[in-house]
Amino acid sequence: MAVYFSEEASVEAVTARVGTNVDPRLAQVMACLVKHLHAFAKECQLSQAEWETGIAFLTRAGQMCSEERQEFILLSDTLGFSMLVDAINNRRPAGATENTVLGPFHVSGAPIRQMGDNITLDGKGESCLYEGRVLDLDGNPIEAARIDVWSDNPDGFYDVQQPDVQPKWNNRGIFSTGPDGAYRFIGIKPVSYPIPNDGPVGQMLGHLGRHPYRPAHMHFIVTAAGYQKVMTHTFVGGDPYLDSDAVFGVKETLIAPFERVSNGSTLWRSPFDFVLTRS
Amino acid sequence: MAVYFSEEASVEAVTARVGTNVDPRLAQVMACLVKHLHAFAKECQLSQAEWETGIAFLTRAGQMCSEERQEFILLSDTLGFSMLVDAINNRRPAGATENTVLGPFHVSGAPIRQMGDNITLDGKGESCLYEGRVLDLDGNPIEAARIDVWSDNPDGFYDVQQPDVQPKWNNRGIFSTGPDGAYRFIGIKPVSYPIPNDGPVGQMLGHLGRHPYRPAHMHFIVTAAGYQKVMTHTFVGGDPYLDSDAVFGVKETLIAPFERVSNGSTLWRSPFDFVLTRS
Repeated sequence: MAVYFSEEASVEAVTARVGTNVDPRLAQVMACLVKHLHAFAKECQLSQAEWETGIAFLTRAGQMCSEERQEFILLSDTLGFSMLVDAINNRRPAGATENTVLGPFHVSGAPIRQMGDNITLDGKGESCLYEGRVLDLDGNPIEAARIDVWSDNPDGFYDVQQPDVQPKWNNRGIFSTGPDGAYRFIGIKPVSYPIPNDGPVGQMLGHLGRHPYRPAHMHFIVTAAGYQKVMTHTFVGGDPYLDSDAVFGVKETLIAPFERVSNGSTLWRSPFDFVLTRS
Repeated sequence: MAVYFSEEASVEAVTARVGTNVDPRLAQVMACLVKHLHAFAKECQLSQAEWETGIAFLTRAGQMCSEERQEFILLSDTLGFSMLVDAINNRRPAGATENTVLGPFHVSGAPIRQMGDNITLDGKGESCLYEGRVLDLDGNPIEAARIDVWSDNPDGFYDVQQPDVQPKWNNRGIFSTGPDGAYRFIGIKPVSYPIPNDGPVGQMLGHLGRHPYRPAHMHFIVTAAGYQKVMTHTFVGGDPYLDSDAVFGVKETLIAPFERVSNGSTLWRSPFDFVLTRS
């Protein structure tokens, strides 16, 4: 193998440089990354000016990051990379509830609520009754399952995006199932909203002729001892962005009905059962 | 083609989202990027924790960038990506002087010098006479070629890295050839130095068992009307890092002799001819 770098043997030149006593998985992941990055440049014959555009883009993305903003996660999300990594790591049998992206707005430590509680603290939005059961693959109820839920408010913002406007923990809560595996709470019928698009990722979407919207959804993390964690959303059936979610989060099995509790009622109802697989 | 994202059709799901009226080259480069990024995650079955490590790495790299520091260029350099892009865009016939990386320390507007001038303003280091000719592929001298040169000082720093220590334009200058195509100036015999390694790229090199050193080199940008720009270094023959340059910049044809002008002299001499191809 040649000592010096060449276009033909570019991957080997880089990979051969890795030392001894290196974590084997790190060496494997980096070799794989270098292989595919180089293949990208070779296949599209990347120009120097395009390389410079890429460097400037990554730099702007990095400088946009703060405690409240993660532009690289937005980039990963909008390139379908987050959904791909989730899919690779969460293959499940048919019938089990599928995962989707976590999103940047989950906050640990939400208040524990009682079944039937209303998690909407600002009184805004169209109320919706969420109910269903947490089940195993055989249809048996799972007791003591923990259900962590959160959604935006009717203006399309999560509480953490508007700390001076929304009450803390607005439209968030944690519930625990009883022996029947059932859950039941009042939230709002969520609304579709754009991902933060005032940064380089928003510019990228614009240049690609893509909109920044996510279809309306309620977030759920469902955990239970002995079962795989389900990190998912339920999507509002009929949302106009279901087939063009900016972050590719929609799966057909996650589209939930949102219907009136009864004729003439102002209350919506969205029934959905979560089916967990053994860990 | 399915409407929703799936592991199998992840690339198609993302690429199908690109709108109309999009710059075709941008669409091509992004489709190629998505294809290879997804192939990377699939081939190495990237875990969620590894994805998080990658996001955190990119974020730290972005936050390290400033007017004086470009961590993403360092990343590109140390993964061989910069040299690859340069190679793709600067294929030349045998006999023509090869390119190498620009590096982050070039400054436009260096002083114009007369042939024979000494560009070392701090009086430090071992003086070296650089001389040779700028030629075309047939060996004819090129008149009015512009030679922009720069190097570190014997402490391994460029003037811009030590604005309070080194005189401005120390070890930098621009020369213009006469009808004989010859150049001649005094600089120092440069020294090897580490790339900035107090950031995430330095950590990466450490984890990969790689050192951060570059073999000693003199930078040259040679331009002439009607010819392709040559952006290159000459490397000090015998340097211990020639076969392990942290940024893969060494090519065999760029290793130059550095020898004493005469027995007992303290002056070094490094002869090197630059051969340009028509643009």
